[in-house]
Amino acid sequence: MIIRPATATDADAIWRIFHAVVAGGDTYTFPPDTPRTDALAYFMAPGIRSWVIEDGGGRVIGMYKLIPNYAGLGSHVANASFMVDPAAQRSGAGRIMGEHCLEQARQAGYEAMQFNFVVSTNTAAVELWKKLGFQIVGTLPKAFRHSKLGDVDAYVMHRFL
Amino acid sequence: MIIRPATATDADAIWRIFHAVVAGGDTYTFPPDTPRTDALAYFMAPGIRSWVIEDGGGRVIGMYKLIPNYAGLGSHVANASFMVDPAAQRSGAGRIMGEHCLEQARQAGYEAMQFNFVVSTNTAAVELWKKLGFQIVGTLPKAFRHSKLGDVDAYVMHRFL
Repeated sequence: MIIRPATATDADAIWRIFHAVVAGGDTYTFPPDTPRTDALAYFMAPGIRSWVIEDGGGRVIGMYKLIPNYAGLGSHVANASFMVDPAAQRSGAGRIMGEHCLEQARQAGYEAMQFNFVVSTNTAAVELWKKLGFQIVGTLPKAFRHSKLGDVDAYVMHRFL
Repeated sequence: MIIRPATATDADAIWRIFHAVVAGGDTYTFPPDTPRTDALAYFMAPGIRSWVIEDGGGRVIGMYKLIPNYAGLGSHVANASFMVDPAAQRSGAGRIMGEHCLEQARQAGYEAMQFNFVVSTNTAAVELWKKLGFQIVGTLPKAFRHSKLGDVDAYVMHRFL
């Protein structure tokens, strides 16, 4: 698998993956019917740094973006957002992107990384971030309206870089 | 003091208060030189519900906005943002707006309210929110670059409605 910066030609793949991920209603707050323009703005708006990951056949199977969590007096803390094609779950793409993202954040001078909303029942994500050094620093009670489980907690996860 | 919905004619007052508040660099992540257009967009962009509070002489001394903390599957949780003219500190305007905001949020059908970034050294705010029933549900280590104190923690605060 290789990771490279996303370009305009990745729009179709990014939209395909975004739509497949949010359709589940189990990991992201985006409404399952989020339109393509919103999806592409989220990952590819001007000023947003984003990367895609390709499988061995050159097919894009995931993407992530890296941004300041807040502008101004909170901009020393990074935020990142990851999606992996549901068809490529357990391929290791999430972990590879996570490690790549941490390195990019260090190089960009960020001092920490924070995820604002990790759905507590998304155990694959929670466990991955723990393996990569993140801690749960906050628990948002019943903050996520899970499509199958009802209202479940979300975590704020953090690590210094 | 009275609270009323903000209108376009409040723009000058909202900008005056916003600028005075962020100039301190001690409570909000906005850069102290945030331009007027950004300030007005924050409080008055289309779709944002906002209110102002007037003192006995009809002068606007504070404002707040009430929005969903996330769209979609997180939209049952409200977020709100408050500013009081530094010249009107300890007037009780913050508490009056806080109580008004909680009632507005209940009426709008929100199930909880979450503040994502309360600067830990802003003890007036932390204590006010505790009095109004909020709990600290997360601590973001060194997340705020305070203009005088260096990097300090920020809190995530939450209450059900």
